[in-house]
Amino acid sequence: MTTGTTAGFGLENLPYGVFSHGDDRRRIGVAYGDAVLDVGAAAAGGPFEALLAAPVLNPLLAAGRATWTAVRAAITEWLRDPVTSAHLVPRSEVTLHLPFEVGDYVDFYSSEQHATNVGKIFRPDSAALTPNWKHLPIGYHGRSGSIVVSGTPVVRPKGQRKGPQDPAPVFGPSVRLDIETEVGFVVGAGSPLGSTVPVEDFAEHVFGVFLLNDWSARDLQAWEYVPLGPFLGKSFATSISPWVVPLDALQAARVAPPARDPEPLPYLRDNGDWGLDLAIEVRLNGHLVSSPPFAGMYWTPAQQLAHMTINGAPTRPGDVYASGTVSGASKQEYGSLLEMSWGGAEPLTLPDGTTRTFLEDGDEIVISATAPGPDGSRIAFGEVAGRIEPAT
Amino acid sequence: MTTGTTAGFGLENLPYGVFSHGDDRRRIGVAYGDAVLDVGAAAAGGPFEALLAAPVLNPLLAAGRATWTAVRAAITEWLRDPVTSAHLVPRSEVTLHLPFEVGDYVDFYSSEQHATNVGKIFRPDSAALTPNWKHLPIGYHGRSGSIVVSGTPVVRPKGQRKGPQDPAPVFGPSVRLDIETEVGFVVGAGSPLGSTVPVEDFAEHVFGVFLLNDWSARDLQAWEYVPLGPFLGKSFATSISPWVVPLDALQAARVAPPARDPEPLPYLRDNGDWGLDLAIEVRLNGHLVSSPPFAGMYWTPAQQLAHMTINGAPTRPGDVYASGTVSGASKQEYGSLLEMSWGGAEPLTLPDGTTRTFLEDGDEIVISATAPGPDGSRIAFGEVAGRIEPAT
Repeated sequence: MTTGTTAGFGLENLPYGVFSHGDDRRRIGVAYGDAVLDVGAAAAGGPFEALLAAPVLNPLLAAGRATWTAVRAAITEWLRDPVTSAHLVPRSEVTLHLPFEVGDYVDFYSSEQHATNVGKIFRPDSAALTPNWKHLPIGYHGRSGSIVVSGTPVVRPKGQRKGPQDPAPVFGPSVRLDIETEVGFVVGAGSPLGSTVPVEDFAEHVFGVFLLNDWSARDLQAWEYVPLGPFLGKSFATSISPWVVPLDALQAARVAPPARDPEPLPYLRDNGDWGLDLAIEVRLNGHLVSSPPFAGMYWTPAQQLAHMTINGAPTRPGDVYASGTVSGASKQEYGSLLEMSWGGAEPLTLPDGTTRTFLEDGDEIVISATAPGPDGSRIAFGEVAGRIEPAT
Repeated sequence: MTTGTTAGFGLENLPYGVFSHGDDRRRIGVAYGDAVLDVGAAAAGGPFEALLAAPVLNPLLAAGRATWTAVRAAITEWLRDPVTSAHLVPRSEVTLHLPFEVGDYVDFYSSEQHATNVGKIFRPDSAALTPNWKHLPIGYHGRSGSIVVSGTPVVRPKGQRKGPQDPAPVFGPSVRLDIETEVGFVVGAGSPLGSTVPVEDFAEHVFGVFLLNDWSARDLQAWEYVPLGPFLGKSFATSISPWVVPLDALQAARVAPPARDPEPLPYLRDNGDWGLDLAIEVRLNGHLVSSPPFAGMYWTPAQQLAHMTINGAPTRPGDVYASGTVSGASKQEYGSLLEMSWGGAEPLTLPDGTTRTFLEDGDEIVISATAPGPDGSRIAFGEVAGRIEPAT
């Protein structure tokens, strides 16, 4: 388990997905090496049969932390047992699907470097960070129905754009199609209307972690987003990786988040380190173009969930929230082409000699990540991939 | 059928809801006079049994326009038939529930008067309308999981606020809790990822209409909303009326929308009149405080759906979108307390001698509406009600 898709998928990881194999029936699977364990089949006759025979992860998500821990232990046993491990299927033979039904989708904006870069590019006459940025994790709701699994083609969206010198908006395919390299979190055990989820309860509510590409049409976004935020510039597609890495697999990846100045209000104070040391890689047509470091994110997922619920908003199994674009200090660590090309002013040159500001038809983006596992092992997230198809 | 809850619920209307009666079982019902027809029971043994025996409207929503028309005709027959009309239950005995599972929720901002008022109050140093306002129906995604049925108590949300003179944000219960008087639309037949819904296809996709109160914490909203839009200032609760009035009942309510200047881009041009002449009333603790006219909305629901999908975003049965706050030309026609009290500067005096800027604990808001029906009849929407409970 050291090469290709098998590296990082050892017993330390055991991420969950939904696959089909040989027919249309969707089944819950767990990635192990170069295989998938059909856990619905392995669970037959036991206490977790009903949860794991579902075609989506939502019943397991709803079951809560104690069940998640027990199921994980059972899967480890099944992989060691010759009878149940007969339900391993080669990963190369399966089709992967969206792993859960998505409830609400919230996108945050929690990388200080990214927010600073975007502020400089979009609002050059103002302070880069808005006055609220260091007091709360800024977020907004995205379109749940547009969340698709890795590999789904992304059709170039059409819409309105208007440059500062244009007398009126024009309509057509986006000419500034971009990526946003993000990390996603899925809520398992929900919280009812009127309740809050304190920072310290994060791991009781969040089930797992995956990669997310929040495709963005920067020209549509720039024209529409004042005053109510991004809408059509984002809602055409959001891709996620098919394997949900359970929090249990990420204990060795936990790191202290950066120091915050000013100190946040009490409901946002850290309680346990939920910074996560994920090493992310972004490839454009196979070329590595960026390596954004997740460990430096200003706001952690625990703070994001606490903020999202401080007003009593409910959460449900399958609710998704995402980190916001992950950007480090240098161009080689930026999480969007907007930043890598500095608003289009500084094209990237790829190793094949071509240049890019934004995405061209046919371009493929692949985002992958790994994290420290126990005893020097690595935890792999697999990848979220998508290829741009021409506007229709 | 001329008084109380029975007026406007004749054969011309027949709105759909979900009720329980005597036990916890949720059933689809149609309001008729002072009764509810248990349409799942009435449909037993017939072609619509599976659709109408569901505990939510979603299967009926997904069935599409031809089925909606056929079911409506069948219900009219069932109400005239002594056997099936035995499934009428007194409306006073039933409990009403959320009528459908909500997919995505989009809130628009399509009243020119409201947008102008808010611009003047929130951004007094800028033009009241942003440059994009007359080119596209501005909208953003809200929180689907916070949509609740009329009658659900609304707990005053807590969060961050910061006045312009405050050195740092403070945390506590909202002190500027407000309403937004809106009209909601529910998508029936969805549209797949990558497709668009032209203006002229509106009635093939949208099933019906209801009332919506987008509760808003103006102090939280003002501090958080730049640059990515409203989030916690809205996501704590959105109330909807329990009866979904089918488009079929609103043919006599259709009116030409106002003239648009400048002319919208071709994909937003009107094709058929989908302005709707709803007469809305807003009551605070029983006192009529506003009568917002819906007929004057700048963007119609047909244009809103066309815009929402022009980038290829998919729609699903149960997706909700709302008009934005409905405001007419005078204070007696404004759809929010923000406008009625002009940002809190001009308190309202109620007939009982008390004054209000924003909502106080214990206040109850009831929004109701009627529309022209065929042959001089009226179509009633019922009401969306909510009472404010103190912060916890």
